[in-house]
Amino acid sequence: MTPASLDTTTTTMAARLSTREHYADLLDKYDTWLFDCDGVLWQGDKLIEGATEVLQLLRHHKKSVLFVTNNATKSRKNYKKKFDSLGVEAHVDEIFGSAFASAVYISSVMKMPKDKKVYVIGMAGLEEELREEGIQYIGGTDPEDNTLGSFSLADWTPDPAVGAVLCGLDTSINYTKLSKAFNYILRNDGCAFLVTNEDSTYPTAEGLLPGAGSVSAPLRYALGRDPIAIGKPKGTMLDCIRAKHDFDPKRTIMVGDRLNTDIEFGKAGGLSTLLVLTGITKESEITGPNASPTVPDYVTNSIGDLRALLS
Amino acid sequence: MTPASLDTTTTTMAARLSTREHYADLLDKYDTWLFDCDGVLWQGDKLIEGATEVLQLLRHHKKSVLFVTNNATKSRKNYKKKFDSLGVEAHVDEIFGSAFASAVYISSVMKMPKDKKVYVIGMAGLEEELREEGIQYIGGTDPEDNTLGSFSLADWTPDPAVGAVLCGLDTSINYTKLSKAFNYILRNDGCAFLVTNEDSTYPTAEGLLPGAGSVSAPLRYALGRDPIAIGKPKGTMLDCIRAKHDFDPKRTIMVGDRLNTDIEFGKAGGLSTLLVLTGITKESEITGPNASPTVPDYVTNSIGDLRALLS
Repeated sequence: MTPASLDTTTTTMAARLSTREHYADLLDKYDTWLFDCDGVLWQGDKLIEGATEVLQLLRHHKKSVLFVTNNATKSRKNYKKKFDSLGVEAHVDEIFGSAFASAVYISSVMKMPKDKKVYVIGMAGLEEELREEGIQYIGGTDPEDNTLGSFSLADWTPDPAVGAVLCGLDTSINYTKLSKAFNYILRNDGCAFLVTNEDSTYPTAEGLLPGAGSVSAPLRYALGRDPIAIGKPKGTMLDCIRAKHDFDPKRTIMVGDRLNTDIEFGKAGGLSTLLVLTGITKESEITGPNASPTVPDYVTNSIGDLRALLS
Repeated sequence: MTPASLDTTTTTMAARLSTREHYADLLDKYDTWLFDCDGVLWQGDKLIEGATEVLQLLRHHKKSVLFVTNNATKSRKNYKKKFDSLGVEAHVDEIFGSAFASAVYISSVMKMPKDKKVYVIGMAGLEEELREEGIQYIGGTDPEDNTLGSFSLADWTPDPAVGAVLCGLDTSINYTKLSKAFNYILRNDGCAFLVTNEDSTYPTAEGLLPGAGSVSAPLRYALGRDPIAIGKPKGTMLDCIRAKHDFDPKRTIMVGDRLNTDIEFGKAGGLSTLLVLTGITKESEITGPNASPTVPDYVTNSIGDLRALLS
């Protein structure tokens, strides 16, 4: 997958991009460009220098530009507001979040009957995507479940209509929600155990916080089994994109900052992959004796590097 | 370790106790009797039939009787109140809980300097044991950390004196506590990651709830590493008992209802083990093709069976 015109010592090393020719070659080879957002286009509330120009350049060359994020706390509509506030052109149907993908999975893949409900551990954006997909849910932001009060099974009437537990990042995580979710999976016949994504941490401007995977870890541990995960690196997210957009995997590239989500997602889907170093992954993780076994096809410092094509 | 006078088909099967002679043999062989409590002496708030008489019988025969529980939500003093309320004789120095053992571990094994502090995820009983050992702590039941309000690293001043995070069952678990604990382990040089015990679930009269191991699972997942665990089946609990009581492992028996905590604890410590079927473990887990690899030395239906010795 590495072109002869690019510098690579062996086929198990990423091609390091740096010249105008490298970027021109990339532009030529790929029609569909999938972008992770945080750590690629912006860092928290700060736009990566040159990101807007590069996206404009791709659109100018009639490339399909799609945004693929594991963030499940925001709906696509709300996520678009983030693009707007940073002055980055994006359309709701170009945005794929793990909240949306989870809703699509429940309605189109699981085909959960309409009279069934989802018990949600998650925030308003996740609820919004379920609502838009016509899926009934309980839990989530319901004040009754957002409490540090004690929980007793004796005082609880479980809803027999709950056919799935869906867990995403929830900064109001508490023992009542965990106890209900655990008992629904344990007691309700055939109740599915789904998580929006398995990111262990969540990057903020001041450092890391526990991510969606950490929020669902108590359920995984108490149940002694793994959930069905929807977001990157799982293929469910790509199935969801495929349902809405035509693309040729051979002419599609995934651009991301995380090896274990973005790059693995692209590779598992048969796409080419470009790692940028403006986010989670550090240079030391891709070179030297302790390099990760996950090797992207290409590496460049920043998405802004593609501005070389403008000169 | 299985006496010839007891029925066993092979040495990898537990001896099934049922006759007066079996129990007399047991009484003769063991001087020190360690008891798990919930599921062995009582189920929730209901005493197991005959438990009181059997404990009296053991005391009458000058046996050492000790109580070994992973419950870290109660201090030993508070746990004694449970015995009192059920009319079971017990003395505070006979009770070993994972909260007490954690405090002893921090002061005597880790030898944490007195000017260092523990960040606690846990309840009042855990704090009480730390206080009694003269260990400084923050977090725990502090109202500031018992909130579902949002948490931001930008608004947080971490305490550089935190030298350990200790996590037990905490029914007020929330994102603020998890975020602080995670960042202390990440940022404070040499900060230890301790858990009182790793029980995945917690039995109540109406069914299972997430246990201490599930409450600490987000930290384990976010950090990508395992904690130092104190309670059963880990040897730290036995070290803690050994520091206070003389006993000969060859003449000591651990009585419990859980294979992966009580029985493994006894076996790892070179003690004999007696499984009772009044708690978590079901008959089907110890017989047939799907039997657990953890095999107790003896099995009896209930601790009350030892009343055969009274006739």
